[in-house]
Amino acid sequence: MPKKILLAHGSGGQLMHDLIRELILPKFSNRFLNELTDSAVFAFQDKRLAFTTDSFVVHPLFFCGGDIGKLAVSGTINDLVVSGAVPLYLSLAIIIEEGFAYSSLERVVNSISSTSQKSQVKIITGDIKVVPRGACDKLFINTSGVGRVIRNLTTKNIKAQDRVIITGRIAEHGLSILSQREEMNFGRNFKSDCISLDSLLVPLLRRNKAIKFMRDPTRGGLATTLNEIAQATNLGIVIEEKKIPIAKHIRAASELLGIDPLYIANEGKAVLVVDPDAAEDIVRYLNHNQQEKYARIIGCVTTQPRGMVLFKTVLGTERILDMLISEPLPRIC
Amino acid sequence: MPKKILLAHGSGGQLMHDLIRELILPKFSNRFLNELTDSAVFAFQDKRLAFTTDSFVVHPLFFCGGDIGKLAVSGTINDLVVSGAVPLYLSLAIIIEEGFAYSSLERVVNSISSTSQKSQVKIITGDIKVVPRGACDKLFINTSGVGRVIRNLTTKNIKAQDRVIITGRIAEHGLSILSQREEMNFGRNFKSDCISLDSLLVPLLRRNKAIKFMRDPTRGGLATTLNEIAQATNLGIVIEEKKIPIAKHIRAASELLGIDPLYIANEGKAVLVVDPDAAEDIVRYLNHNQQEKYARIIGCVTTQPRGMVLFKTVLGTERILDMLISEPLPRIC
Repeated sequence: MPKKILLAHGSGGQLMHDLIRELILPKFSNRFLNELTDSAVFAFQDKRLAFTTDSFVVHPLFFCGGDIGKLAVSGTINDLVVSGAVPLYLSLAIIIEEGFAYSSLERVVNSISSTSQKSQVKIITGDIKVVPRGACDKLFINTSGVGRVIRNLTTKNIKAQDRVIITGRIAEHGLSILSQREEMNFGRNFKSDCISLDSLLVPLLRRNKAIKFMRDPTRGGLATTLNEIAQATNLGIVIEEKKIPIAKHIRAASELLGIDPLYIANEGKAVLVVDPDAAEDIVRYLNHNQQEKYARIIGCVTTQPRGMVLFKTVLGTERILDMLISEPLPRIC
Repeated sequence: MPKKILLAHGSGGQLMHDLIRELILPKFSNRFLNELTDSAVFAFQDKRLAFTTDSFVVHPLFFCGGDIGKLAVSGTINDLVVSGAVPLYLSLAIIIEEGFAYSSLERVVNSISSTSQKSQVKIITGDIKVVPRGACDKLFINTSGVGRVIRNLTTKNIKAQDRVIITGRIAEHGLSILSQREEMNFGRNFKSDCISLDSLLVPLLRRNKAIKFMRDPTRGGLATTLNEIAQATNLGIVIEEKKIPIAKHIRAASELLGIDPLYIANEGKAVLVVDPDAAEDIVRYLNHNQQEKYARIIGCVTTQPRGMVLFKTVLGTERILDMLISEPLPRIC
């Protein structure tokens, strides 16, 4: 472990996993943290509640398709949903740099309000801190959330032959942030996919027992999420490049920038691991219930290679797809 | 409302109340936020849960009597306890500046671990973000918490003749931070009172129905907490200066600095509003069960002056004690 914290420790990738495993888990080891989940699930009375937290430090605060407020609310809603829970209540804690424009704060608060109302999630507790100029960059937001668990999703459910589904086209959030931060001119605005997934996924969870595990591939992208599942199950995952939905302009921009879209963050997508028999039906349901109809079965759980992700390219070659190592895009969420 | 956010908007005082009332409440108005509490209480099954959040931006990170980790855990534990709840689970979200020393992070994590273990509170979910140099000052922490409500504490319970108790000596946290930040030489280290209050207050809550309301007088100090209670009840509170416990060296330093100790933050004290008949017993219990025996009845709820706090000085004069207006000490928590 290096003597200083690097940007890559916050990337969602390998170095962050190492930091958590070496520094955090030994101090707080409990059955909640030991399981790979986006939320912790605890029993209360005879029911179960999910509990999750995320801080948002995205730069710029406002981007095509969203802003830090929408991102904070939908990010925490999504963490609850992919844990099998109906989101109920959120907390909202804001750290503001002295001198921040009141009008910008109002814009963020409006966005938080409309995003939470759409999902019928109530913000019921909060905190405001103001720090002197230079002590933080404009605005940071933390949202924590609690939800009622309606489906027990865990990597322990996953077996060989299960199918891996992605709910839509990848890499759109990260590239949106990057293009606007660097004021790159790609001839069009890249729109973030930032959205709350409760209206799409909660009805599916309610009616369908075939879903074994879900996760939203945010920091570290699709490749990192697949690796987390492979490592947690000690099973393999075989993914086919030609089946991964990605917009042409996103693929072109990724190639231009030399960044693999498999490692770029999404903020409105989920990876589902499901029973093979139900996979086609679930994809149909997803595409019937969303505007963009790019849900796809992208791969399969296998016995080999154990704990790893095998990537079959369109050229017919195969390679091991690693977890994200270094951070291509800091502050994307 | 000014066009830019000022440090005083984060002070816990009048400007923060205005900001919340003008910008936040109209957008999120619900019965949870409308009630004056340190946590929101929601029903789940036939029981009630408390939910609270706080971000910590204290500078310096390490101070005599504590550090940002101890402060974050005990602050959230205390918010749950004063809401009548037994703390159960915490979340932990850390924002780290690139280049922060690994050894310092380890020290903070150790402190978080030991503080939560002492209170048998489990940290079950978390988040790590790393931002580039200059985007935040070293380390910010958010802790959110859930607890099981065992006593329904609300300002609605409060009546004239109720007694106001403080559990110990005031102003020790804020002066500790200030003295160490400015490297003032008072001839001794000022120790923060930072501590978790669950072991003192939860057993009291369990056995004593005479407690009507509790609050921890953090940002804005004792004067601001008393004003919040007076405003919420539209009753008066009469406080006697001679009864307020304060260490001699804290009083002397406050006078030297020209800061009123009634407005200085505490991080290990609670204000209790209790039935007049039970007040003496409760003070005895508090002093029997803590090392420093400075719990005192400091005043009384009255019908006049409505919504205000009347302060009787040791000199025999009387004045209205206002809520904190401007921030004497930013980043004390």
